[in-house]
Amino acid sequence: MVTVQQLADFVHGELVGNGEVPIARARALAEARPGDISFLENDQHLRELPHCRASALVIPKGLPVNGQPVIHVADPLAAFVMIVQLLHGRPDPPPHGIDPKACVHSTATIGPDASVFPFAVIGEGSTIGARCRIHSGVSIGRYCCIGDDVTIYPNSVLYDETAVGNRVIIHANAVLGADGFGYRHHEGRHVKVPQLGSVEIGDDVEIGACTTIDRGTFQATRIGEGTKIDNLVQIGHNCRIGRHNLLVSQMGMAGSSSTGDFVVVAGQVGIVGHIHIGDQAIIGGQAGVTKDVPAGQRMLGSPATPEREQKRILMSLEKLPEIRKEIRRLKQHLGLADDSLEDK
Amino acid sequence: MVTVQQLADFVHGELVGNGEVPIARARALAEARPGDISFLENDQHLRELPHCRASALVIPKGLPVNGQPVIHVADPLAAFVMIVQLLHGRPDPPPHGIDPKACVHSTATIGPDASVFPFAVIGEGSTIGARCRIHSGVSIGRYCCIGDDVTIYPNSVLYDETAVGNRVIIHANAVLGADGFGYRHHEGRHVKVPQLGSVEIGDDVEIGACTTIDRGTFQATRIGEGTKIDNLVQIGHNCRIGRHNLLVSQMGMAGSSSTGDFVVVAGQVGIVGHIHIGDQAIIGGQAGVTKDVPAGQRMLGSPATPEREQKRILMSLEKLPEIRKEIRRLKQHLGLADDSLEDK
Amino acid sequence: MVTVQQLADFVHGELVGNGEVPIARARALAEARPGDISFLENDQHLRELPHCRASALVIPKGLPVNGQPVIHVADPLAAFVMIVQLLHGRPDPPPHGIDPKACVHSTATIGPDASVFPFAVIGEGSTIGARCRIHSGVSIGRYCCIGDDVTIYPNSVLYDETAVGNRVIIHANAVLGADGFGYRHHEGRHVKVPQLGSVEIGDDVEIGACTTIDRGTFQATRIGEGTKIDNLVQIGHNCRIGRHNLLVSQMGMAGSSSTGDFVVVAGQVGIVGHIHIGDQAIIGGQAGVTKDVPAGQRMLGSPATPEREQKRILMSLEKLPEIRKEIRRLKQHLGLADDSLEDK
Repeated sequence: MVTVQQLADFVHGELVGNGEVPIARARALAEARPGDISFLENDQHLRELPHCRASALVIPKGLPVNGQPVIHVADPLAAFVMIVQLLHGRPDPPPHGIDPKACVHSTATIGPDASVFPFAVIGEGSTIGARCRIHSGVSIGRYCCIGDDVTIYPNSVLYDETAVGNRVIIHANAVLGADGFGYRHHEGRHVKVPQLGSVEIGDDVEIGACTTIDRGTFQATRIGEGTKIDNLVQIGHNCRIGRHNLLVSQMGMAGSSSTGDFVVVAGQVGIVGHIHIGDQAIIGGQAGVTKDVPAGQRMLGSPATPEREQKRILMSLEKLPEIRKEIRRLKQHLGLADDSLEDK
Repeated sequence: MVTVQQLADFVHGELVGNGEVPIARARALAEARPGDISFLENDQHLRELPHCRASALVIPKGLPVNGQPVIHVADPLAAFVMIVQLLHGRPDPPPHGIDPKACVHSTATIGPDASVFPFAVIGEGSTIGARCRIHSGVSIGRYCCIGDDVTIYPNSVLYDETAVGNRVIIHANAVLGADGFGYRHHEGRHVKVPQLGSVEIGDDVEIGACTTIDRGTFQATRIGEGTKIDNLVQIGHNCRIGRHNLLVSQMGMAGSSSTGDFVVVAGQVGIVGHIHIGDQAIIGGQAGVTKDVPAGQRMLGSPATPEREQKRILMSLEKLPEIRKEIRRLKQHLGLADDSLEDK
Repeated sequence: MVTVQQLADFVHGELVGNGEVPIARARALAEARPGDISFLENDQHLRELPHCRASALVIPKGLPVNGQPVIHVADPLAAFVMIVQLLHGRPDPPPHGIDPKACVHSTATIGPDASVFPFAVIGEGSTIGARCRIHSGVSIGRYCCIGDDVTIYPNSVLYDETAVGNRVIIHANAVLGADGFGYRHHEGRHVKVPQLGSVEIGDDVEIGACTTIDRGTFQATRIGEGTKIDNLVQIGHNCRIGRHNLLVSQMGMAGSSSTGDFVVVAGQVGIVGHIHIGDQAIIGGQAGVTKDVPAGQRMLGSPATPEREQKRILMSLEKLPEIRKEIRRLKQHLGLADDSLEDK
């Protein structure tokens, strides 16, 4: 139990109202109850305020107050994260070292203060950087190279020769480096093209649960620095994803395509192979991208077109039944039997 | 080997025909052979009957008979399940206890008659209810709480603080509680918003293989009692799924959206964030839902519209090439050059 | 370090140019640098040649040469694969036997020269063929039957009674045999229909990472010989996939549907339940197939129509805003107020 004053001091905020109010928990606005502190990220959430039952609030500077004590800060989300961690956080456990139930090859090297949890496997010739956390059941193949401060959650699989930068987070059951989907038709059968490339993940990348990134055929499939990939995403072989992309859940990219920097691809988008999405392009949800996208372009629809065009098409589409009626009326007006035009 | 009479007695059905016919196996109608018993769930499958080679059938009361012995029951599917289990079923193995090859933290508590199989991991402070089956390679994090009679199939991952009700089934390689996809743009980089919430799964929920349900940012992502989720589904952070929903394979829901009770969402549907789908709404396959859906509404298309509207649009769409021709003909009829209207 | 002449001899190709040039590495065309050998699969890649920095090339017979030494062969891809493996390949490790950290049931049988890696589990009564590689963390249930020369990558899960042919490859985190999504509504709840069938995989099938193939209700879900399935694919219960299909990433097929032989289904396609896709049909990306598809048919769109029809619709769709304008102009031409037709 702390007071609002203590929390205000803790986040270096400015208290307005009664600082003696005791606070037991920190909860999101919709779930907060008396005794809780909550927060407003910006004025867009002001309309939820009348229903708020929290005993105190962290709010941006300049927002009006309405009775309960508030803590004014420049960045309410960051301040609230600090408060949540103070009130409910559990400290990260100390480094675990190599668990005796893990299976680390004698030629693998594990950096200082790294943790390798039970039933994790690290293969021949692989290198794990400092302070990494390799959770239970993770399988790291042969000749992989993992940077410093990397977290790999349980049961993820990295095939042989996968390279991972620093500060990367890989969520549970992700698969990096499985064979690309490459076959040639020969005498009535699909014959596998050996997938001899690898996967390279840049610094500060995050990869979602059950996401799959295939190894290249001869080169590496690459994910650029700072790119964030959601769950259940598919990245095909030989793709090159730029830096600081956001690739949302269930999107898929076929082989040998690429993106520039700061590209945003929304959920369930499909991108065909062998095309390029330019810097800062934004692809809307469920779009089907079939050709190169220029830098900065917003795309929508399947097949995808520039957003403006697609919106005009969608607006017209709603009117389509009306358009048919109009034509019928025009023909009636002209004294044409309903099928007279067709008859000519 | 049993007789049809014995099976009729076993399922408390009414035998019509020769009860002495011996039965060796139970098979689905299309695959049944002489010596087999099969079943018809209802009269919709009557047209398959002439091709049926089964030696006996379980059928609903009131359905006509055509020669081979039949067992009349009120619920043929349920009766056939009993027969399949009698003839081919293997008894569930007895509780296994905690396998010496599992890794259970000393502070975790395991309920009576629970089974924890080899290479499963149960973290600090977690609780497993009575009669649970935690299969091989499952990773249950710290401070999780699992109810009674829960089955978690191999290699599923529950992150820290996941709460699971009673009689829940979680299929292989599902991931509960991975970090939500939350970032803020700051100085040209995507900065991770800590995901401090959790996941809560109600009683009698079933979760498919490779399905991912992200933890909330500050609150819990919740799945209501009795809801059934298929394979490869994505549920974003802070979502609240109501009770008794059916969420079909490969559908995805972005963050902070919610559903009422008895909602049905078909395969590959995408639902944007921050919207609500009302009770008993039905969303058709591949739809893209972009705004709130009222209770009871059926939606289709991407972007989704009420089913009736979408069907009218789709019907008109098929006629679109014809509409263009009609306009050309109208202009010819009026003696207008094909581009004369544009020229004005 | 080898010479181009040595590589030409190794692949039985015909050298043109200076055979003494030393080669250190083999790289894909776009990434090749001086000292590398690269390849051109066919004349479609000729336009990339001017940018090529490789010191030597493997090219098809008949393609023109432009200075650097080349090796002419009938099949450049196959020859280049041989060269990559010669220069960079690591030999497959010898059979590993049953690792003492694996968990193999006493009643399971493991074929000669098979490898069972750490933390793999093989259940009661299961059979593993000769030369199989069962990687770490794989879970094979009870009464499974795995053919010869099968590779199962880490953390894949095969439920009880799964049958797998010879030379099958199953990538990491795939799930075979989870329960199909079958429920009946009873007194306001979804009641599970027991899924008592199994999964059967034919010879020479390849299954992608995180792909899920559900067990049948009473029969087997079957994948025909030679079919290749990409990552994150969903195959519902009771489906029967024909031989030599290509099923691309993130496609999904609902229960009880089937395909003929040599069917190609592109990425993110959805196929409803209880329909049949005929031999050699081709389904375009993101299509939504709602009814039977005749043999040889190409389908596009959602709902899917024959490709030719869909292309006409898509072309007209782009013109839709123009069509609306044309009607407005026609009405103006006829001296009709913009809403006069509606007023009648």
